[in-house]
Amino acid sequence: MSKDKSSNMKHPRTTSSAERNHLALKPIGIIRSVLKERSKAPKQGSEGAPDVWIAVRPGFTQALDGLAAGDEIIVLTWLHRAHRDVLKVHPRSDPKRLLTGVFATRSPDRPNPIGLHEVTVRKVGKNRLRIGPIEAIDGTPVIDIKPILCKPRRAETVDSTDRR
Amino acid sequence: MSKDKSSNMKHPRTTSSAERNHLALKPIGIIRSVLKERSKAPKQGSEGAPDVWIAVRPGFTQALDGLAAGDEIIVLTWLHRAHRDVLKVHPRSDPKRLLTGVFATRSPDRPNPIGLHEVTVRKVGKNRLRIGPIEAIDGTPVIDIKPILCKPRRAETVDSTDRR
Repeated sequence: MSKDKSSNMKHPRTTSSAERNHLALKPIGIIRSVLKERSKAPKQGSEGAPDVWIAVRPGFTQALDGLAAGDEIIVLTWLHRAHRDVLKVHPRSDPKRLLTGVFATRSPDRPNPIGLHEVTVRKVGKNRLRIGPIEAIDGTPVIDIKPILCKPRRAETVDSTDRR
Repeated sequence: MSKDKSSNMKHPRTTSSAERNHLALKPIGIIRSVLKERSKAPKQGSEGAPDVWIAVRPGFTQALDGLAAGDEIIVLTWLHRAHRDVLKVHPRSDPKRLLTGVFATRSPDRPNPIGLHEVTVRKVGKNRLRIGPIEAIDGTPVIDIKPILCKPRRAETVDSTDRR
C-alpha cells in the first residue's frame, strides 16, 4: 500500500460512510470468450481453458499503460452466475468429499464471488487485452488487474523494479 | 469454477440484471491491527508488517471451516482509504519513476481498491482468524479468503487434495 498522507486531508470521511458509499464495484471490462456456459467451463485456467479478450471499458484504458505481452498478471473477475448464500461446499463438486467452508476452497459460490485468475498477457490493444488461459465465461465482468508478485520466476523482475 | 448445471435453472436472470443487482460487496469481516494509519503502513506485508486478527462477521463463520494454522491463504480486502479515480501512479510513490497505469502496479489507488494479501494462518478461532504478516490498517473490510494454489511449496498439498 502506498504511503499517502494527503489521503485523509483530500477526502475526509469516516470509515462507516466510506464503507457505505464505496463497496460498490465498477466493472472495468468484460470477458469475451468462446466459453459461453458455466457448465462447460473447466474449474481452473490450467485445465484446458482458452485465451480470451478483456474488452476494457472506455475511461479505464489508461490504467493498462505499462502492461506488455508476456507479463504474468492476476485478473479479478465478478463471477456473476455464482450463488452468494453458499457457505460450505463439497470441494470440486464431489459429493464424496467432506463439506468444507468456502473460504478454504476456490468455489465460485461464496459471499463475494470474486474470481482470481493467474494468467499471461498475450497482447495489449488500445482498449482490450488478450490474456489466458482463463476459465471465466463470456460476459464475466472484470473488476481488477494486478501484476503477480508471488511467483519465483517473477522474483528477479519484481525485485529489480522494486516491487512496483 | 465448479460445474453447476442447476445454477441457471434455480436463479434465472440476465447478465445485465445480475450485474446491476450483484456488484455490491458484503464485508465478511474486518481487520483488527496495531497499524492505525495508512501513512505508517508498509507497502507490502513482507516489509515488516504485523500479524492481525480478522474479526469475522456473524453469519460467515461457517465458511472458515477447513482452514488451519499454517495454511497459506489469499485475503482480499477493500482498501477503504484509497482514491478510486486514479488511473496512473508513480510506482512506490517515487516521483523519479515513470507514471504507470494502475493495472501494472500494486497501488491501492485504482478503480476498485481491492487489496490482495498472501498471508499465513496463525490461529483459527470461532469467529476470528489470526493471519499475517499484512500491511492492511485497522478497520479495513475483508471481502474474501481463498487458499493459495500458485506457490510451489503448496503444490504437493494442492495436488493431493485435487486442487480444492
